[in-house]
Amino acid sequence: MAEPFDAVDVIMTKRDGGVLSTSQITWMIDAYTRGVVAEEQMSALLMAIFLNSLSREELNCWTDAMIASGERLDFSALSRPTVDKHSTGGVGDKITLPLSAVVSSFGVAIPQLSGRGLGHTGGTLDKLESIPGWRAELSLDEMTEQLESIGGVICQAGVGLAPADRKLYALRDVTGTVASIPLISSSIMSKKIAEGTSALVLDVKCGSGAFMTGREQAKELATTMVEIGEDHGVHTIALITDMSTPLGLTVGNALEVRESVEVLTGGGPPDVVELTVTLAREMLDAVARVVETHGIPGAGVAPGSAEARTRSEELRQADVAGSLKDGTAMDAWRATISAQGGDPDGEMAWAHHTEQIKADQEGYLTSLDALKVGVAGWRLGAGRARKEDEVQAGAGIQLHAKPGDQVRAGQPLMTLHTDTPEAFARAQEVLEDAWTISPLPPGSTSVVFDKVARDI
Amino acid sequence: MAEPFDAVDVIMTKRDGGVLSTSQITWMIDAYTRGVVAEEQMSALLMAIFLNSLSREELNCWTDAMIASGERLDFSALSRPTVDKHSTGGVGDKITLPLSAVVSSFGVAIPQLSGRGLGHTGGTLDKLESIPGWRAELSLDEMTEQLESIGGVICQAGVGLAPADRKLYALRDVTGTVASIPLISSSIMSKKIAEGTSALVLDVKCGSGAFMTGREQAKELATTMVEIGEDHGVHTIALITDMSTPLGLTVGNALEVRESVEVLTGGGPPDVVELTVTLAREMLDAVARVVETHGIPGAGVAPGSAEARTRSEELRQADVAGSLKDGTAMDAWRATISAQGGDPDGEMAWAHHTEQIKADQEGYLTSLDALKVGVAGWRLGAGRARKEDEVQAGAGIQLHAKPGDQVRAGQPLMTLHTDTPEAFARAQEVLEDAWTISPLPPGSTSVVFDKVARDI
Repeated sequence: MAEPFDAVDVIMTKRDGGVLSTSQITWMIDAYTRGVVAEEQMSALLMAIFLNSLSREELNCWTDAMIASGERLDFSALSRPTVDKHSTGGVGDKITLPLSAVVSSFGVAIPQLSGRGLGHTGGTLDKLESIPGWRAELSLDEMTEQLESIGGVICQAGVGLAPADRKLYALRDVTGTVASIPLISSSIMSKKIAEGTSALVLDVKCGSGAFMTGREQAKELATTMVEIGEDHGVHTIALITDMSTPLGLTVGNALEVRESVEVLTGGGPPDVVELTVTLAREMLDAVARVVETHGIPGAGVAPGSAEARTRSEELRQADVAGSLKDGTAMDAWRATISAQGGDPDGEMAWAHHTEQIKADQEGYLTSLDALKVGVAGWRLGAGRARKEDEVQAGAGIQLHAKPGDQVRAGQPLMTLHTDTPEAFARAQEVLEDAWTISPLPPGSTSVVFDKVARDI
Repeated sequence: MAEPFDAVDVIMTKRDGGVLSTSQITWMIDAYTRGVVAEEQMSALLMAIFLNSLSREELNCWTDAMIASGERLDFSALSRPTVDKHSTGGVGDKITLPLSAVVSSFGVAIPQLSGRGLGHTGGTLDKLESIPGWRAELSLDEMTEQLESIGGVICQAGVGLAPADRKLYALRDVTGTVASIPLISSSIMSKKIAEGTSALVLDVKCGSGAFMTGREQAKELATTMVEIGEDHGVHTIALITDMSTPLGLTVGNALEVRESVEVLTGGGPPDVVELTVTLAREMLDAVARVVETHGIPGAGVAPGSAEARTRSEELRQADVAGSLKDGTAMDAWRATISAQGGDPDGEMAWAHHTEQIKADQEGYLTSLDALKVGVAGWRLGAGRARKEDEVQAGAGIQLHAKPGDQVRAGQPLMTLHTDTPEAFARAQEVLEDAWTISPLPPGSTSVVFDKVARDI
């Protein structure tokens, strides 16, 4: 009875293209979390936001309200500087695995609070659970201790961070309001800001396998997230990267872990290496800048001090590519996996059944659709349709050619892996027109399209 | 599992400005009625429709789906021709009472399935319940028998007509999606078409006290409803009428019944008489046209026959204004009230407390805001805030001057009536700036602004 606003007034304001006040937004998110604003009222507001958007000020306020719905983490007592990374999700995107190892090998803490896969994109936790003994659930104390001692942590996000976002995401999923730039960006950034990082690098995917299929839209999403980050005092950089074709040569859980280990031994597919190195460079540059201006409070390094300058210079000079060649990244990987109970030398599952798909003509592979490969991997058992489903550790797809490669008629293009052979037909169906072979090679492209930051 | 569509796909199609197929709309309304489509999904679709509208074809299909959700009435066996009327609702709008009497006095059946008031506009059933003994609930057999024997029936709409509309209306009310032309028009027309009338006259209110405050919007609503009616084989006419100021000199339940009886004795306020006569003329013309082209099947009058022509000519020549002077409309009124258990001579309630509001200067009353007077009447107890509230039969407002009238300083402008004297302060508060007095008289206006029909 003592509610300061009426949900219908708030909905009608946004419906008519008006601007919501700070107190209206704060109340709406809080009242929704308390159950005073009903699901059907929030879904009407979400659709009005989808169609009429939010201003920068409204969006900051919306993000604040989601952060305020839960707890905040604080890693400022760590003796290591902290940097965070988020990918908007793609097919074959195992980058977190080698990247976490590379960055932590330079003495930086990198808390990766991750999720499980839903739909055609895999989840980092699902992938790591292919490793015998590895566990995703850590207490806050365990996480903090591991960040201090090793630097790398990849674990399940607790339910305490931005619970309003969890509730909103479930609602958006069933009401056709997922693909909205303000709603996506506030969802991602509220959790990242609540995680308490001081530097953040975003990997915004663009192409058929991503939320944002077009370059312009991806840039708008990246710009919006950089603005929210910077407006909240988090030094934020975004790269816009290619998701028109799968990353690397594997899609699936154990398959992707194996490929990540290859990268950590100095090998692996060039696109995975390129993206790992580029993101690591951005993360180390971002954390160097934060060290320079804010010091490392937990290590007694004062802002602007000689030591701060030395530490940040070291981070800027760090030989990222070298860490993949000389085994230091691999050492960090083994330490991180072991710390979470995993056996880095443990035998991972292989699927019980495989089937090959072959090229029907010779020429150059000019395209290989990320979405279709992702959906095929999902159908083979690598992903889940509902939260409560189990994934198969061994299921997925190995690619034997990538766009730009020359192929012969009859050459295997990919191998499908599954424990449930009845899935082959449905996977093959979606793969039927997933690639093109042409007489001329495609132009060569980089996996990184663009960079967005406040000061470039 | 065997649902032919996915609600999220339907929502996204309309969200992106696309056109929904007939089968999508039919399924969506049916699945919503069955509870398969959730409230939050329907509310997202309603907001998308609010902002992206429905095409004429989509709207006809949406209306059909709502009709199909319930039962349909059929009055074709009556020996009287049938005509229906609907008002979009206004302040002091008691027109149904004298109008039903006038039209039925010419041998026409006029089934008025009415509702109760919610918010600042009163409900016809609430008004008639001021009459001792009168009852709103009739069975279908009772209604049919009364239509045959007397012609006039004003009763509560059964829950069987367009139940999807009932569920949708409750949802629109809490999600800010009420004031949408396609949603309003399909809500009204689905019920009117399900009622089985062959001719329909719409009174679309325009001004501060109405859904549609602007003339253009009111015309768009009228045109949309006429199109839906004609596309469904119902001969439909719409008048656009003034709701910037209350109709007549009374707002409230028993107060409005007394004023209606005055009109039936040949007196009453000129605007109420004008609107009653104009609407009656349109209704008789509309039913004359239907008799000419379709005959009166229940009376054995064949389409295009000499008798059909005679009967329609009689309806066209009917002396509508005369029926108010010569007592024939009053006889019809008494018969209708008595048939539903009411005592036409029964003593109606007066409120226990009154208070006057006086003019603060002399001049011409140039405006008197319908919405504010409506809200004041509601606060005095004439209306309800929630469906389960009771209304006071005696509460309301008597106006002593209308726009155009000359007033002296200190002259009573209105008398407030209530059983709950603590309500006076809140009523006076909203009335504070409800009128203007100026040295010059306003231009004179008619209560009827415009007419919309297929062939004009």
